[in-house]
Amino acid sequence: MPTERIARQFAFIIEADRLKEVFRQTLLTRSRRPENDAEHSWHICLMTLVLAEHSNTPINVLRVLKMLVIHDLVEIDAGDTYAYDTVGMADQHERECRAAERIFGLLPADQADDFRAAWDEFEARKTPEARFAAAMDRVHPMLLNILTQGQKWREHGVTLPKVIARNQHAADGAAAVWEHALRLVNQAVADGYLPAK
Amino acid sequence: MPTERIARQFAFIIEADRLKEVFRQTLLTRSRRPENDAEHSWHICLMTLVLAEHSNTPINVLRVLKMLVIHDLVEIDAGDTYAYDTVGMADQHERECRAAERIFGLLPADQADDFRAAWDEFEARKTPEARFAAAMDRVHPMLLNILTQGQKWREHGVTLPKVIARNQHAADGAAAVWEHALRLVNQAVADGYLPAK
Repeated sequence: MPTERIARQFAFIIEADRLKEVFRQTLLTRSRRPENDAEHSWHICLMTLVLAEHSNTPINVLRVLKMLVIHDLVEIDAGDTYAYDTVGMADQHERECRAAERIFGLLPADQADDFRAAWDEFEARKTPEARFAAAMDRVHPMLLNILTQGQKWREHGVTLPKVIARNQHAADGAAAVWEHALRLVNQAVADGYLPAK
Repeated sequence: MPTERIARQFAFIIEADRLKEVFRQTLLTRSRRPENDAEHSWHICLMTLVLAEHSNTPINVLRVLKMLVIHDLVEIDAGDTYAYDTVGMADQHERECRAAERIFGLLPADQADDFRAAWDEFEARKTPEARFAAAMDRVHPMLLNILTQGQKWREHGVTLPKVIARNQHAADGAAAVWEHALRLVNQAVADGYLPAK
């Protein structure tokens, strides 16, 4: 029934509103309040539209955007796991898989499968599109941390080697973007916002 | 010079962070705080991915997403004009055009032209993609208003005929989505959240 189909689609859209209340460990450049997942997701879509030309290999930009729009929805249930929280990361994937079941499961079955496949692709980071999407997802918080003088890095004892170890896979998707991010992060070290070791 | 190009691209991306501090007249369903433009933009991208099948005519979904990701950036300078504020709407387009000049002008020239063309297309609402994008942009605040018991509608004295007059062009992009929105809005009238006249 078409009415039932669109009602399920709206139920999913309504549930997604909660992503605006899942807060991250990055701060906005102006008010310095914590960013939420919806804002982050929007911003990396914008980055994709601007930076797609720097992908290491040709990519289907629509596929990248689809992954990025939905990639954090699982955090409605699983919460945000800080990039440098090794304890929280241990069972992160399991928690997020359960969330994916429930949240994508709100959609009509064909779309649930389709969205889940896009999320799985993002998580596996094996296709050029997933690698580029991951690069946007990693470089974005680095950029906000740099622009807020490394306040959150300092609070969590993050150092340059940790930033590089955690984020350098961005180069697998967009080497030129990673190179630019490294220039900015090295400047942050020189400015005293991030310990060199 | 490639370094200069990517530096300009990043300057635009950084400026865009401010969209997260441009607040709208709609409330989030949970905390009931005002929504900002970045969250709204993300949410209508998600709606597009879910509802594209209901477009009246076949559409290029990537083009729709591109328009929606950037459509509100002009409000960084021009501010949000409430949909039912006829005074503010009088010079809205002029204010937003100046903002588009400045903000898209941060990009390398070729991308500035390209993004400006996408924004102009969205504003003109003549292509199937722009009509579908406009439908998402109109139905989304209706949905949030319904889910928050019409609190903002009441504060601004908005009635059912005003909601219909302002938003019914959504049917030009996605008649089935508009039809569903009308079902929900009629229920809101029945529930006493929106005056019938």
